[in-house]
Amino acid sequence: MKTQVAIIGAGPSGLLLGQLLHNAGIDTLIVERQTPDYVLGRIRAGVLEQGTVELLREAGVAQRMDREGLVHEGVELLVGGHRQRLDLKALTGGKTVMVYGQTEVTRDLMQAREQSGAPIIYAANNVQPHDIEGPRPYLTFDKDGRQHRVECDYIAGCDGFHGVARQSIPASVLKVYERVYPFGWLGLLADTPPVNHELIYAHHQRGFVLCSQRSQTRSRYYLQVPLQERVEDWSDERFWTELKARLPEAVAEQLVTGPALEKSIAPLRSLVVEPMQHGRLFLVGDAAHIVPPTGAKGLNLAASDVNYLYRILVKVYREGRTDLLAQYSPMALRRVWKGERFSWFMTQLLHDFGEHQDDWDRKMQAADREYYLGSAAGLANIAENYVGLPFEAVE
Amino acid sequence: MKTQVAIIGAGPSGLLLGQLLHNAGIDTLIVERQTPDYVLGRIRAGVLEQGTVELLREAGVAQRMDREGLVHEGVELLVGGHRQRLDLKALTGGKTVMVYGQTEVTRDLMQAREQSGAPIIYAANNVQPHDIEGPRPYLTFDKDGRQHRVECDYIAGCDGFHGVARQSIPASVLKVYERVYPFGWLGLLADTPPVNHELIYAHHQRGFVLCSQRSQTRSRYYLQVPLQERVEDWSDERFWTELKARLPEAVAEQLVTGPALEKSIAPLRSLVVEPMQHGRLFLVGDAAHIVPPTGAKGLNLAASDVNYLYRILVKVYREGRTDLLAQYSPMALRRVWKGERFSWFMTQLLHDFGEHQDDWDRKMQAADREYYLGSAAGLANIAENYVGLPFEAVE
Repeated sequence: MKTQVAIIGAGPSGLLLGQLLHNAGIDTLIVERQTPDYVLGRIRAGVLEQGTVELLREAGVAQRMDREGLVHEGVELLVGGHRQRLDLKALTGGKTVMVYGQTEVTRDLMQAREQSGAPIIYAANNVQPHDIEGPRPYLTFDKDGRQHRVECDYIAGCDGFHGVARQSIPASVLKVYERVYPFGWLGLLADTPPVNHELIYAHHQRGFVLCSQRSQTRSRYYLQVPLQERVEDWSDERFWTELKARLPEAVAEQLVTGPALEKSIAPLRSLVVEPMQHGRLFLVGDAAHIVPPTGAKGLNLAASDVNYLYRILVKVYREGRTDLLAQYSPMALRRVWKGERFSWFMTQLLHDFGEHQDDWDRKMQAADREYYLGSAAGLANIAENYVGLPFEAVE
Repeated sequence: MKTQVAIIGAGPSGLLLGQLLHNAGIDTLIVERQTPDYVLGRIRAGVLEQGTVELLREAGVAQRMDREGLVHEGVELLVGGHRQRLDLKALTGGKTVMVYGQTEVTRDLMQAREQSGAPIIYAANNVQPHDIEGPRPYLTFDKDGRQHRVECDYIAGCDGFHGVARQSIPASVLKVYERVYPFGWLGLLADTPPVNHELIYAHHQRGFVLCSQRSQTRSRYYLQVPLQERVEDWSDERFWTELKARLPEAVAEQLVTGPALEKSIAPLRSLVVEPMQHGRLFLVGDAAHIVPPTGAKGLNLAASDVNYLYRILVKVYREGRTDLLAQYSPMALRRVWKGERFSWFMTQLLHDFGEHQDDWDRKMQAADREYYLGSAAGLANIAENYVGLPFEAVE
């Protein structure tokens, strides 16, 4: 097989990159280790930055999102029982976010891929990039009992943190920056109406809470829990009771509970690998960076990488601008680090660090909350990061 | 002797509180351990927040400041050789700072005290507050070979961090919050024109630099140095050479060097004690809190405490509002913690932490600089803190 850009991974970033390149007349082939159902089964983020929304529109996959997605003009920040609305639209000169589940984004992208007729290979085993440092890289994978080979110009590694793409880069070339947090998020998905029409980020002495949603009938709630906690120990009832205990009475009263469709614990981690390019292999999204979910930046930073790689590749193929390829990693990383910063900031601002924090840090954390939530400039600062900082132009 | 408010310490906060209360018809007596010349010999801050300037005007001691002080509408932030002007006036809706040395403020206040005829006792030994928990506190001190006693209603401890006031409060009552930094500031005062008409805060890989000034002919420069550094090892020439090495060539070229009038190393420390009141003793300024000098908040937070204590005492004497006395500590502390937060933020943003920082922290520090200096909301955030957050109303 032969293609121009081989994409490893059919999650939202691989599919979105594939769609954008396909629309631009650039051949792509996507290989994915899992089945479509497995990919759709992953429960992830649900808040899309304005820039991500615009990129999905540019890719022509936004019809259902624009119909069914919920435009949110604000979020609520709840500290010490005090409700402070973050008016995203007013604070950013008109920007908003879109609540639309990652699963739905993936579904729309899968459908678009199918309609486009561009090749996508699911359940591909032992995907492996080769000769990425040379002028003729290729992929191999096993399928239907035999090995296949895909010759290509470039490889995009959109295969997540545990994928093969990053592992194909010599470890000596990569620098890893990492921070782990002493807690995780216990998430519960339920077909119940959201407790509030906007998301609620709450700091409470019992721990952080996020009241999120996927639609007007599907809610997603998160509780900060110690790392050693086991999901088996959390009955639905225990979850709902704890959630109510961390919310002010007026909010807790509005909470509609119901059986969990899914319940899981995810540790929080910040991680970046540099660089995001090695030879003709480009890392995209989780393959190169992880954020704690507090800022809702995971999928959005993946879309940010896609935005840059797509625009660069278009200029490479249309204008012969191969000089831009070396710009991908520094450009993508500039925005990644800002997203990492914000995710770290929000995590530090709103979680309880217990014994991992001394008295001084606790006071600084409280002063940060007082300042940022009590000042127009402080709120504007959170708002502009939440809706997403602007992209740099590729030129 | 008898007075209404006994003030320990004739530094700027004690003198300013004394002047304001005197003007309001409240009797004060100030006792100071040192001589006037010793007090004037202390080289300290030189940047007054707008609120401090207004308080000095309210006290009627601002004539010379308004004539000779320099109104600064901006400061420069210099990171990686890039000059970013922080337009204080534009970013805060018209607020500015006043460059006028603490020594000059003190001199003006001393003169006003003398003109007012209100009592001030210098070179008072063994000053000691007594019975602060009861209804009739008093001070004792030794002077001219005998002990004196001052009966009063309230005692204001304006005697700095090493003063007796805080030490008179039972240690079990006080909670101390503290952070020390792994570096100090080497300061040099010279009668040379400032290198720039506005202050320059510079981050450099060799360490932080502040190009400050006291007037159009007197400069004050600071270099971040390791804590173990000794001032004896820093000739004037070495200082100027190192300063130039940390500034961009275009700035270094403008630097006029000259003999040091004063040169000293000060460690950086953040410290707050809570509460700031015990019985009839009220702590003001450095007696209760220390900031690293990076945000120019030391004198300004002392003025903030004076502002609150003065307004409360006026209402106590004029309206019998003794209920307000218990409000002093929480009110003062709310603003102190915001000043501590900003001083800590600026210190973290601009200094080199060397081995005291891991790779992740270094990246977050760089991302903070990129974000705050590259965003209008980020700059507005720094600006509003630099000119000083508003005071709460005492009512």
